[in-house]
Amino acid sequence: MAKDKPTKLRARMPRGFADRGPGDLAPTRAMLETIRRVYELYGFEALETPFIEYTDALGKFLPDQDRPNEGVFSFQDDDEQWLSLRYDLTAPLARHVAENFDKLPKPFRSYRAGWVFRNEKPGPGRFRQFMQFDADTVGAPTVAADAEICMMMADTLEALGLAGKFVIKVNNRKVLDGVLEAIGLGGDENAGRRLTVLRALDKLDKVGPAGVRDLLGPGRWENPEAKSGDFTKGAGLEPAQIAVVLHAVEVAYDEDATFGDPRAKLEASAQWQEGIAELDEIQNLFVKAGYGDGRVKLDFSVVRGLEYYTGPVFEAELTFEVKDEKGRPVRFGSVGGGGRYDGLVGRFRGEAVPATGFSIGVSRLASALSYLKTDAAPEFGPVVVVVMDRDQTAHYMGLVATLRQAGIRAEMYLGNPKNLGNQFKYADRRNSPCVVIQGSDERANGQVQIKDLIEGAKAAAAITDNAEWRESRPAQFACGEAELVEKVRELLDHHGVPHGAALGDQRG
Amino acid sequence: MAKDKPTKLRARMPRGFADRGPGDLAPTRAMLETIRRVYELYGFEALETPFIEYTDALGKFLPDQDRPNEGVFSFQDDDEQWLSLRYDLTAPLARHVAENFDKLPKPFRSYRAGWVFRNEKPGPGRFRQFMQFDADTVGAPTVAADAEICMMMADTLEALGLAGKFVIKVNNRKVLDGVLEAIGLGGDENAGRRLTVLRALDKLDKVGPAGVRDLLGPGRWENPEAKSGDFTKGAGLEPAQIAVVLHAVEVAYDEDATFGDPRAKLEASAQWQEGIAELDEIQNLFVKAGYGDGRVKLDFSVVRGLEYYTGPVFEAELTFEVKDEKGRPVRFGSVGGGGRYDGLVGRFRGEAVPATGFSIGVSRLASALSYLKTDAAPEFGPVVVVVMDRDQTAHYMGLVATLRQAGIRAEMYLGNPKNLGNQFKYADRRNSPCVVIQGSDERANGQVQIKDLIEGAKAAAAITDNAEWRESRPAQFACGEAELVEKVRELLDHHGVPHGAALGDQRG
Repeated sequence: MAKDKPTKLRARMPRGFADRGPGDLAPTRAMLETIRRVYELYGFEALETPFIEYTDALGKFLPDQDRPNEGVFSFQDDDEQWLSLRYDLTAPLARHVAENFDKLPKPFRSYRAGWVFRNEKPGPGRFRQFMQFDADTVGAPTVAADAEICMMMADTLEALGLAGKFVIKVNNRKVLDGVLEAIGLGGDENAGRRLTVLRALDKLDKVGPAGVRDLLGPGRWENPEAKSGDFTKGAGLEPAQIAVVLHAVEVAYDEDATFGDPRAKLEASAQWQEGIAELDEIQNLFVKAGYGDGRVKLDFSVVRGLEYYTGPVFEAELTFEVKDEKGRPVRFGSVGGGGRYDGLVGRFRGEAVPATGFSIGVSRLASALSYLKTDAAPEFGPVVVVVMDRDQTAHYMGLVATLRQAGIRAEMYLGNPKNLGNQFKYADRRNSPCVVIQGSDERANGQVQIKDLIEGAKAAAAITDNAEWRESRPAQFACGEAELVEKVRELLDHHGVPHGAALGDQRG
Repeated sequence: MAKDKPTKLRARMPRGFADRGPGDLAPTRAMLETIRRVYELYGFEALETPFIEYTDALGKFLPDQDRPNEGVFSFQDDDEQWLSLRYDLTAPLARHVAENFDKLPKPFRSYRAGWVFRNEKPGPGRFRQFMQFDADTVGAPTVAADAEICMMMADTLEALGLAGKFVIKVNNRKVLDGVLEAIGLGGDENAGRRLTVLRALDKLDKVGPAGVRDLLGPGRWENPEAKSGDFTKGAGLEPAQIAVVLHAVEVAYDEDATFGDPRAKLEASAQWQEGIAELDEIQNLFVKAGYGDGRVKLDFSVVRGLEYYTGPVFEAELTFEVKDEKGRPVRFGSVGGGGRYDGLVGRFRGEAVPATGFSIGVSRLASALSYLKTDAAPEFGPVVVVVMDRDQTAHYMGLVATLRQAGIRAEMYLGNPKNLGNQFKYADRRNSPCVVIQGSDERANGQVQIKDLIEGAKAAAAITDNAEWRESRPAQFACGEAELVEKVRELLDHHGVPHGAALGDQRG
């Protein structure tokens, strides 16, 4: 192809996507394995669905709909039907359950880790492809299912070493709906304003109580003092309505005046009453199971963006502080959430199917763990066998094979071997614990030289030719070819570099 | 949402996609882990790229281009640029290397497992989403890099228990190009016919020597005897040209006449000579490293469909027999392949960058392993704590929590608890080893009943109420609540059901 297309392409990624190397992937893999182990312990089973679904099967439940195709990557199939990349793992699960309803055990408990896609405006830390790790119980009407999933999240975060550093916050959409009903925003005609109110509450972390009050009222300036910057239009509530809302979500904010008894207005809403009763029951389960120690707690300000929730909603928040872009200390914040979505499977079945689930934001959580990691021990690379004589390639590859058969990561240098310094620089870049050297003299005597790079790394870069090499030999020793494995093992053990079981042991 | 949208959607997947349950996922996960371990042992590092790339960065190298968007799922970004879902993991790697060229160690050895997408006509066993597990060495011009990757594939298949059941076949695109040159099909003007010749050779497994001869000549009928069915137009070669091609790929086929000395024609091609010399060198490396025992061998009929290969090409074939759709025994066939693609990174850099890689077809390989699996021991599900008294939910959840803390998979029944038979049916469907039962009498005495489902599964389904239950108690015993963990552990150990470390042990 290079011959046919002389035009040079620019190598670049679309915005909002990222490559990930071993420094990201190894800790993420370990983290996913721990999550999986806890989910399995709770009786959840693995289930994966494809990345592409019919657009109508996914539905439109995303909070941000300010983009042409409403946050979802979509395209037409050959038969003109619209397909989309999944934007979460819940909508595809609902499709799966509806499609296989009679075959599945009910309640159906399943988990899945997978990439999802949002066609949103990317920004710092905001990607268009990210991974979620979900667990869901479908067919369980009882709030015990919601409580269990919250406890499982607490156990998961503890298993990841985050004990004492998180809180699982629980609220109920019925309570929020009751609040909206109490201030006269029930009915289809108020759907848009209800959403504006919920979005205002969802911004509490970002804009604080005064900001939420402004967003519930006429609106909010980006710089409230100066009344400058972007202006976000508010929900347009009256002060009395705002007082009810703020009372309900337990956000203390001093108003100049009081507006009757907000509590009485809330208690007049049947939905609010039902939501509060469910939360009481959940709280009771937390306490009885020993999670009432602050790991899991009720918080009336939790909203959750997705529109398909119908009951309890949850949010996992990490409570330790990190620095924000401006260097100010802030709570690390949300690493996942979920809730009850009794209507989602029902879209396919014409009857409500109770369901509840929790989704972990894998990248956010991995990033949190990397903040806390104290043992920044470097990962060592493979042992590198350098190429002194080009015509001995087959022999060097044999040495490498011997090391690998013994479970030691090893490779022969595969670049141009002419410049010995480049071979050592390569070993340095791979963070190799040692290199194995065999020139014609050593070969004649059935020997190899082993150079300990952990001890003597610094001198290596300066050595560029064979003669100089033979002079200095820093941190280097000779041994017989037959002792190669034994001596390398000793070196690795001496430096505490892990090495695995023999290759043969893995077979079968 | 269910309230707002009374229209019932049909729950279905687009064609060519599939859901995967625990029976698929658990063995695949174990397989990926083994592959990863071998790749790491060979000094390869994890690297993952995103699912979506600029369409032009991926290029067009797919063999089948008979679909509107040529086998690739594509869509436009907001800025009108075309994006595509990756169709393999090699083109994105080339983009990554070109984009980060100066930062990477060279040679750059990396591996990745990931889903890829082909917008092709789906069929039985032919999906539009499938997983590949690739390893690539970029920046290594020597055929030692190709040889090494073939040996790694042999080690990988042995580590998966396939010793003696596979062959890694190696050919060289330069040999094939030399053959085409030898029969006068060099030059840009013959690009189309060259492709037709290569595709004909690629069909050897399917259509046999006679079929390939027909496809090299005028064409082939689906039913050659009756000259009926579909007719595939051939490459239109003369008999003398066909004789050279068949000689070159070592396909024995009796022609009515001979056409001079095909060998002499091949030896006149410089490309053919170069290709053969490289293969000799590779073969020498195989023999010296101990892989010359039939695990890895030269095979001049290997073509590989992708158009970006420039040198050695490889194919991993499983040699044991399975039944085809018509019940006839056939070799299991290809589970992966690869080759050298020196032009792919160069598309971005304006200079050739040597590179070679191998890609495992994960689903094909997993399916092969499942054929060979003999120990079809059932996977046991969680211990189920049944709900006898609805108002004791919190207490039952406490029992479950105790089991989980001890590393025993457990759950409380979360469906409607009214029908006890349903609770036992659920435990059966989950393949639970035992259920834990506590009615008011047991609770009053601080006891639980443990019912061994492995011993006494059959009777359970018939029991529908509490009274009948108390009569029969099959394979059931009582113990104190404090002994619950100990007694369940004994039961699991007795039946050889694995159970894990205590939850607390996983923390930190």
